[in-house]
Amino acid sequence: MEPWKLASRKLLSRRILLSHGGGGKETHEIIENLIKKIVPSEYWKVGEGTGLDLLDDSSLIPVGDSMIAVTIDSYTVDPIIFPGGDIGILAASGTINDLLMSGARPIAALDSIVVEEGFEIETLARIIHNMAETFTRNGVAVIGGDFKVVPKGNLDNIIITTVGIGRIIHPVRDDMIREGDKIIVSGPIGNHGAAILSARGTYGLKVSIESDVQPLTQLMIPILEKYGQFISGAGDPTRGGIAMLLNEWAKKNDVLIYIDESKIPVRDEVKAYADLIGVDPLALASEGVAVLAVNSDKAEEILAHMKNLGWNEAAIIGDVRKPKDPRHKGLVIAKTEAGGFRIVEAPSGEIVPRIC
Amino acid sequence: MEPWKLASRKLLSRRILLSHGGGGKETHEIIENLIKKIVPSEYWKVGEGTGLDLLDDSSLIPVGDSMIAVTIDSYTVDPIIFPGGDIGILAASGTINDLLMSGARPIAALDSIVVEEGFEIETLARIIHNMAETFTRNGVAVIGGDFKVVPKGNLDNIIITTVGIGRIIHPVRDDMIREGDKIIVSGPIGNHGAAILSARGTYGLKVSIESDVQPLTQLMIPILEKYGQFISGAGDPTRGGIAMLLNEWAKKNDVLIYIDESKIPVRDEVKAYADLIGVDPLALASEGVAVLAVNSDKAEEILAHMKNLGWNEAAIIGDVRKPKDPRHKGLVIAKTEAGGFRIVEAPSGEIVPRIC
Repeated sequence: MEPWKLASRKLLSRRILLSHGGGGKETHEIIENLIKKIVPSEYWKVGEGTGLDLLDDSSLIPVGDSMIAVTIDSYTVDPIIFPGGDIGILAASGTINDLLMSGARPIAALDSIVVEEGFEIETLARIIHNMAETFTRNGVAVIGGDFKVVPKGNLDNIIITTVGIGRIIHPVRDDMIREGDKIIVSGPIGNHGAAILSARGTYGLKVSIESDVQPLTQLMIPILEKYGQFISGAGDPTRGGIAMLLNEWAKKNDVLIYIDESKIPVRDEVKAYADLIGVDPLALASEGVAVLAVNSDKAEEILAHMKNLGWNEAAIIGDVRKPKDPRHKGLVIAKTEAGGFRIVEAPSGEIVPRIC
Repeated sequence: MEPWKLASRKLLSRRILLSHGGGGKETHEIIENLIKKIVPSEYWKVGEGTGLDLLDDSSLIPVGDSMIAVTIDSYTVDPIIFPGGDIGILAASGTINDLLMSGARPIAALDSIVVEEGFEIETLARIIHNMAETFTRNGVAVIGGDFKVVPKGNLDNIIITTVGIGRIIHPVRDDMIREGDKIIVSGPIGNHGAAILSARGTYGLKVSIESDVQPLTQLMIPILEKYGQFISGAGDPTRGGIAMLLNEWAKKNDVLIYIDESKIPVRDEVKAYADLIGVDPLALASEGVAVLAVNSDKAEEILAHMKNLGWNEAAIIGDVRKPKDPRHKGLVIAKTEAGGFRIVEAPSGEIVPRIC
């Protein structure tokens, strides 16, 4: 029997669905069955580093006395130019933010671009310019790459894969979140997801919402340098929004995460648009927002520092609790604006394909 | 004026051609105009490392007292399963070989897979298995990745981007090639290119040629450890074959490279197939062959060591010369089997799209 048939037969007989790429339950099924079952666990990481064992924003590799962080992401967003950004800015920002969320200072990037024959060179120049400028403005060298062209009809537009390399300032892993920690978001959530959906005119509605896409270097480097030891988790809520991120945290750490919806910053137009199309704003992607789990004693001080740095809408939105009912372990519970409570589910399915 | 319009107006008004992805002259035009003109030169590399300044197989980043090598490549080969391999084996081998050719021991890899909705999960499992096995069998940990799905019709099949990270054993840059150096190839050339073309039945011919795709760890690690200081250049002749690689070396080092075609190992069936379709075998891709430029005093010893390691068909195929006529600087000249001489051109255009 071919060795790859060791994966679950039920899975093997199926075909890939959009939901397998959604970053949620179905993506985990692929990672667990097709990757972690296949790669022997001694090859999940290098020495004292991290990798498939943790599945964090970046993987860590020990080099001499240092630890470097590495991350990779492919960007397939459609449309490639959208209100507030383009696929180049998105790729650079996403890569920088993944490094920052692991506690690293981004220092270098490589990119691989695959375009369709017939793609406009001026559009390509714009995208590469904006990607390179986003990297270099944030102190990241662009040290290499690859460039491939596929025949017309083999690809819709362009796919950019970026790799980021950083030096650890203070390692932040998301399996160290403890009861009592406070949850902070750096600003309004869901703008990127709403911007992409509305730019596409999906659901027949075309409203003007700008993506929040931005690197969080100016926020995260000072916070990591000053408060690194008090941060027990950091993440950028991309695919699946903060609903996905907080559910991952709750499950990984076997805790209950409690949030208060009235405290969560959401732009009025994003809230209205999410209501209209029937999507939970907590499940909409952000591309320029940090979510932190921090030591409760330092939460107000860290929040004040974030506001000082210019992140005026940062807010403490909840905390990490020991559930009275053990069945509530691994759950995210929100106090609704109406005053009731609801379980915030990890989004399943692919609500927005090609969002990042 | 938008800053990306600083690139040549002639280029900007055009559209991407297949040849822009061929790895030759047209790809260099994209890199020079759209990347190097846009990224300020202080961001081409990190500190004492290398990057866009050198455009070598890997880029180097200094970390403490160490130097790490990083490489990225996107694989779009069609068909995805071909005689002798598949896109997974190809991605892992290509990444490992790029690190080895820079003088590094591969230690870690990350991959990003983009597939089309509807892709067979069993095929995906096979590809991931073969990629992971190729990495781990060569001592490379698979420490992270990304997985995206795009709607049906947005992509033909699958694109895999792999990143490799290595620790430098002895740095090999390809701008140190000197007059007198001998050129060694590790084995028969062109098998991969011929295998892909014949598998596709391009030109109406379907013959059975196996790709040579393989990681060169078992060859290159011992050679680097024992003879690193005597190697002035190392490369794997992928897109554009050894014709492309030797032309790059000749131009980068401003030397004449002389080769003797009767010394170059080429399988009979590859030679016959190349003849039939009218392609120079020197321009066909290999994915499991190393080309080395070595100190002439050590060339025979290195060749003997390569044969000892099991690379029985390795051969010295030529040397690096000071041209009598200065117009021959930067050229590759071959003594033909008929006894005459010819200039080996860098292949231009995209002779084989989606070959790797």
